[in-house]
Amino acid sequence: MNAPFLSLSRRLRRTPFSPGVEAAGVKAYTVYNHMLLPTVFRSVEEDYHHLKEAVQVWDVSCERQVELRGPDAARLMQMMTPRDLRGMMPGQCFYVPIVDETGGMLNDPVAVKLAEDRWWISIADSDLLYWVRATAHGWRLDVLVDEPDVSPLAVQGPKADALMARVFGDAVNDIRFFRFGHFDFQGRDLVVARSGYSKQGGFEIYVEGGDIGMDLWNALMEAGRDLDVHAGCPNLIERIEGGLLSYGNDMTDDNTPHECGLGRFCNTHTAIGCVGRDALLRVAKEGPVQQIRALEIEGDAVPICNDWWPVLSEKGRKVGRVSSAAWSPDHKTNVAIGMVKLTHWDEGDEVEVVTPDGPRKGIVHETFWA
Amino acid sequence: MNAPFLSLSRRLRRTPFSPGVEAAGVKAYTVYNHMLLPTVFRSVEEDYHHLKEAVQVWDVSCERQVELRGPDAARLMQMMTPRDLRGMMPGQCFYVPIVDETGGMLNDPVAVKLAEDRWWISIADSDLLYWVRATAHGWRLDVLVDEPDVSPLAVQGPKADALMARVFGDAVNDIRFFRFGHFDFQGRDLVVARSGYSKQGGFEIYVEGGDIGMDLWNALMEAGRDLDVHAGCPNLIERIEGGLLSYGNDMTDDNTPHECGLGRFCNTHTAIGCVGRDALLRVAKEGPVQQIRALEIEGDAVPICNDWWPVLSEKGRKVGRVSSAAWSPDHKTNVAIGMVKLTHWDEGDEVEVVTPDGPRKGIVHETFWA
Repeated sequence: MNAPFLSLSRRLRRTPFSPGVEAAGVKAYTVYNHMLLPTVFRSVEEDYHHLKEAVQVWDVSCERQVELRGPDAARLMQMMTPRDLRGMMPGQCFYVPIVDETGGMLNDPVAVKLAEDRWWISIADSDLLYWVRATAHGWRLDVLVDEPDVSPLAVQGPKADALMARVFGDAVNDIRFFRFGHFDFQGRDLVVARSGYSKQGGFEIYVEGGDIGMDLWNALMEAGRDLDVHAGCPNLIERIEGGLLSYGNDMTDDNTPHECGLGRFCNTHTAIGCVGRDALLRVAKEGPVQQIRALEIEGDAVPICNDWWPVLSEKGRKVGRVSSAAWSPDHKTNVAIGMVKLTHWDEGDEVEVVTPDGPRKGIVHETFWA
Repeated sequence: MNAPFLSLSRRLRRTPFSPGVEAAGVKAYTVYNHMLLPTVFRSVEEDYHHLKEAVQVWDVSCERQVELRGPDAARLMQMMTPRDLRGMMPGQCFYVPIVDETGGMLNDPVAVKLAEDRWWISIADSDLLYWVRATAHGWRLDVLVDEPDVSPLAVQGPKADALMARVFGDAVNDIRFFRFGHFDFQGRDLVVARSGYSKQGGFEIYVEGGDIGMDLWNALMEAGRDLDVHAGCPNLIERIEGGLLSYGNDMTDDNTPHECGLGRFCNTHTAIGCVGRDALLRVAKEGPVQQIRALEIEGDAVPICNDWWPVLSEKGRKVGRVSSAAWSPDHKTNVAIGMVKLTHWDEGDEVEVVTPDGPRKGIVHETFWA
């Protein structure tokens, strides 16, 4: 089928940057945390090349924040994740798998530690607010949990440092990876982190208060004119090349962090208090039986991957699924993310991928392209 | 702006009926509970007239179920809602406001009581599963909570009784409003309820197991050929005329059930165990200061309502918002749903509605059109 239209309603929330996104000629959206997330401006391929060469401004307001505030904030944060947070300092961002009591993934956000008693969880696409609030209430913790008026704006690409320095001053380039600092814009104190959902480098600006959103958008666009700045968005091809997972596509609450290849973010033994600890100790010891892998799919460009594609062994047995796939102009092959059983997850293992256009040969890789 | 395209991915889940929906020429979707929900087949107006005259089959798989099973299922269900569930019998469906500990609306689902120890919650657009599971875990309740493989298919319209009898037998017409029975289709036992998100009458079939989805879809389409059966979907105009609320559009977790005009579904005094009871006792006593109302908006057809439109008093003070609006061909006016302060919520009160095209005169009504 052709790409269908999206019916707009208030339920699919607009963002402080929507006027800029529309003026820049957004062609398509997805819906993420009940909010509009642009997916294409010129074309997925043009946006891809531009992202790797220049700098883009991304409306990622849909990375909503769950804010924890109060004496039990750190305890509640640790209850959510098998990553040991004891060594985390204010000013740091941690990628944290969030698990339920069975060790199933509920979200894979970035935790932002603002202070000992104040955190933001910058969430992927599920209503983590409901899990966190009910947990705080059920365990009678002394903590406020809500969704603040914070809309992240990402600046991504090799020229991100240059652009950001023009708007926030040179000091912004001193921010280290997954650290953040406080910077002034129009008298407003904003959290600026070196992070983002691409492998091209860049920043995420946590814009508090929607009223200054378009001023910041316009300031970045004007300051970056000679850097060829352009409105952009998370790019399907680039994120697959880089192995950046997408919650709901590449994993669901059926999967443990270990299956998602996120074992390195789990310190299950010492993550005391994590509600999924008992369940995950077992997995941590024995290892998962399936795991996220890079897959190369041979042949011409694959169609849009809007459902899981079965991955079969040479004997026709199901040994996995492909969850994200796209043609890579730079690597001249189809790049994909899938979950593969341990019998077929070694480098170079050959499998059959059942695409809607028919079966294709797939080659499993232990590392991603970027 | 023109209607944008929707980028498809696995994260926006397809349903067991997607092949039928696509073959019927779906023109646009929205995203609801991380799933595709059709919004237009022929045109919103054509679909509207047809729904009121004939019978439609709706893919409402996105009404996902949260299943509660075990000795504490009924206790957990009562913790969620200020509606007193003690008198509810197996075989009944109850519309239940779901509230947090502050009395804010988290969802407005239909609860389906399968047995004393087994319930389905047929949810509106938010991940209620997260709230219910964390509550069960935090309070250490003896209950299993998960999302079963159940995809509702609705049959709506004045000829729904005739069509359903042809597929399920005449006994299906004995089901009373908001009751359900068990009916056989291809040897599978299915729950069939007299319910649905329209005021035209009809049924919702809870299809367990996606594998029989298209068989049932096709059986209904074939049996109803001479009834002019057509693929359809919840219709924006018809639901506004009928005052059927949409979670995320017309209300959010900022609103109490009383503000939403759902006070008649609250028995807060006797709903012992409801986590929001303390907060709501206060509101139940004093009444809300703003409430959902029908609004007539004068002039030509309004544009798409994709953001809250301010509602102003004669003095220019903000006294509410419009959250859903559309031109009604039958009533020859713009019908709308809004939240209005008590100073302006009486029948016939005049207000100003600030639409994207400019201000319009609005008239407040205490009852909806259908």
